[in-house]
Amino acid sequence: MSNIPESVTIKEEGPREGFQIEKDFVPTERKIEFINALSKTGLKTIQIVSFVNPQLVPNMADAEQVVAGINMEPGVDYTGLWLNEKGLERAKATGRLALKGNLNLCASETFLKRNQNRTSGQQIAEMHGTIESYKESGIPIETGGISAAFGCNFEGDVAVAKLLELAKVIFDITEEHDVSLKQFLLLDTMGWGTPDRIKRALGALQDLYPNLEYALHLHDTRGMGIANAYAGLEMGVSHFDACVAGLGGCPFAGNKAAAGNVCTEDLVFMCEEMGIDTGLDLEALAECARLAEDVIGHPLPGSIMRGGSLNNLRANLAA
Amino acid sequence: MSNIPESVTIKEEGPREGFQIEKDFVPTERKIEFINALSKTGLKTIQIVSFVNPQLVPNMADAEQVVAGINMEPGVDYTGLWLNEKGLERAKATGRLALKGNLNLCASETFLKRNQNRTSGQQIAEMHGTIESYKESGIPIETGGISAAFGCNFEGDVAVAKLLELAKVIFDITEEHDVSLKQFLLLDTMGWGTPDRIKRALGALQDLYPNLEYALHLHDTRGMGIANAYAGLEMGVSHFDACVAGLGGCPFAGNKAAAGNVCTEDLVFMCEEMGIDTGLDLEALAECARLAEDVIGHPLPGSIMRGGSLNNLRANLAA
Repeated sequence: MSNIPESVTIKEEGPREGFQIEKDFVPTERKIEFINALSKTGLKTIQIVSFVNPQLVPNMADAEQVVAGINMEPGVDYTGLWLNEKGLERAKATGRLALKGNLNLCASETFLKRNQNRTSGQQIAEMHGTIESYKESGIPIETGGISAAFGCNFEGDVAVAKLLELAKVIFDITEEHDVSLKQFLLLDTMGWGTPDRIKRALGALQDLYPNLEYALHLHDTRGMGIANAYAGLEMGVSHFDACVAGLGGCPFAGNKAAAGNVCTEDLVFMCEEMGIDTGLDLEALAECARLAEDVIGHPLPGSIMRGGSLNNLRANLAA
Repeated sequence: MSNIPESVTIKEEGPREGFQIEKDFVPTERKIEFINALSKTGLKTIQIVSFVNPQLVPNMADAEQVVAGINMEPGVDYTGLWLNEKGLERAKATGRLALKGNLNLCASETFLKRNQNRTSGQQIAEMHGTIESYKESGIPIETGGISAAFGCNFEGDVAVAKLLELAKVIFDITEEHDVSLKQFLLLDTMGWGTPDRIKRALGALQDLYPNLEYALHLHDTRGMGIANAYAGLEMGVSHFDACVAGLGGCPFAGNKAAAGNVCTEDLVFMCEEMGIDTGLDLEALAECARLAEDVIGHPLPGSIMRGGSLNNLRANLAA
């Protein structure tokens, strides 16, 4: 239990993960309203858009307008997601985003093909050029990671040995290019994670790479999100990606209210109640969660926005 | 980690917890249909009704008809809840229920007053008569417990010392009456539990009473249900109360889809994926969860019924 960190950082991904899966177009000004509200919660990093094919992801067609329209809060990094050189060029062209180079591999050949139309051989080969391109553009490269790290709907379970193999590929390549990663991110892209799998994967990586900061990107597809985050905390994980209200989601969920990404304010509630500092305003996040439901137009799965925080109750009792 | 049990038992409380909070009356035949479906999932104990004032809990007005109407599956104990002698008499009169004597105290004076119109002094004093009454009726007394064990919306946090004090009262009284409890149940009645609180409470009780089986009754009001169950597993908890689809709920939840009790099939999914035997049919439970939504007429919070199990995916991959 002594591995539990004193503080954690949370990267909010609600605007990107949440809007990208909506079929109905969310008006640009409402996206901006939501991002502006998130900016007032203490979050230091907010991923607000992705630069992807608007034919495939219509809700990201206005990425440039969203980036141009937000009120940038001092001290907050606004980031975007890209999957290729063209996306990166669009992100650069906005002139307003904090560009960060992530080096990710995917544990599932099939998912990689479906999601990015690449083979793992191609993904590995491209990493060399990507690193040099980031270097030329002065984009810091701090995070490596593995997607589909705990299992894949098309390939099944992922062995810890596979994660170690992919991590070695990443560290061999970065070493070759004199890049020193600070953080390693495991992404439970399709919701196969369970607390014991999270612990085994982290434990094996920490054995080999004890000086890295570990991070988790969790989906709540099967209701394990918060339990998996707790397992991560027990293993010393000090960074989480999360989405306000549990925005995001799984294409297999038949119901729009079905679980998406792990819910920011529920995670913050757990951390703060355990004495782990997040630096975030829980009540303001819960307000953002309610705003997200209004913007999206259907219920979202977060619990704290409905159940309420305990500090509010404690304050009423003390009054 | 070595405390994690090899198997757990789950007591299903969906019919009682779930229907009692619904404003609209659920037709008797649909309650029976749901209980009959639950009976085919491998569950060994199902709490199907409560014998309480029908003026206060209209959906339990047909308790006797429900008990009389179900198809009793061999090997399944059907139980009911009662809060006083009159309720117990009604339960006995059905002639079909497995009567079990639970000896519970409440950690919150205010909640006890609101929920059962008693003081803790009265609750303690009554326990002597309750035990003798159970003995005379041949009702086994196996479980003691504490409700509002982790906090109360009207009184705030509950100290572990308070739990130890109440446990001592229970064990002193049972000793006086030559009753030997087998199980001790902590109820997170108002959803104040967090994984660290669960562990501290269990640890303190286990220090003093190492030979008891510990059980948790968890509400998911603030999204901590599964994480709290995981914390319980890490402390060796081998029995859980749970509700299919996350039936049940919190009077403070503004949205009917807000979290209720910890979700049976999500908990079973976690256990089975961790290699903990539940003896339950996960797919049949997910079917019951979907049936519950149909019977209740609004969405319920369970995840597996929407996200699907992994064994189904694995079977498709292998085919």
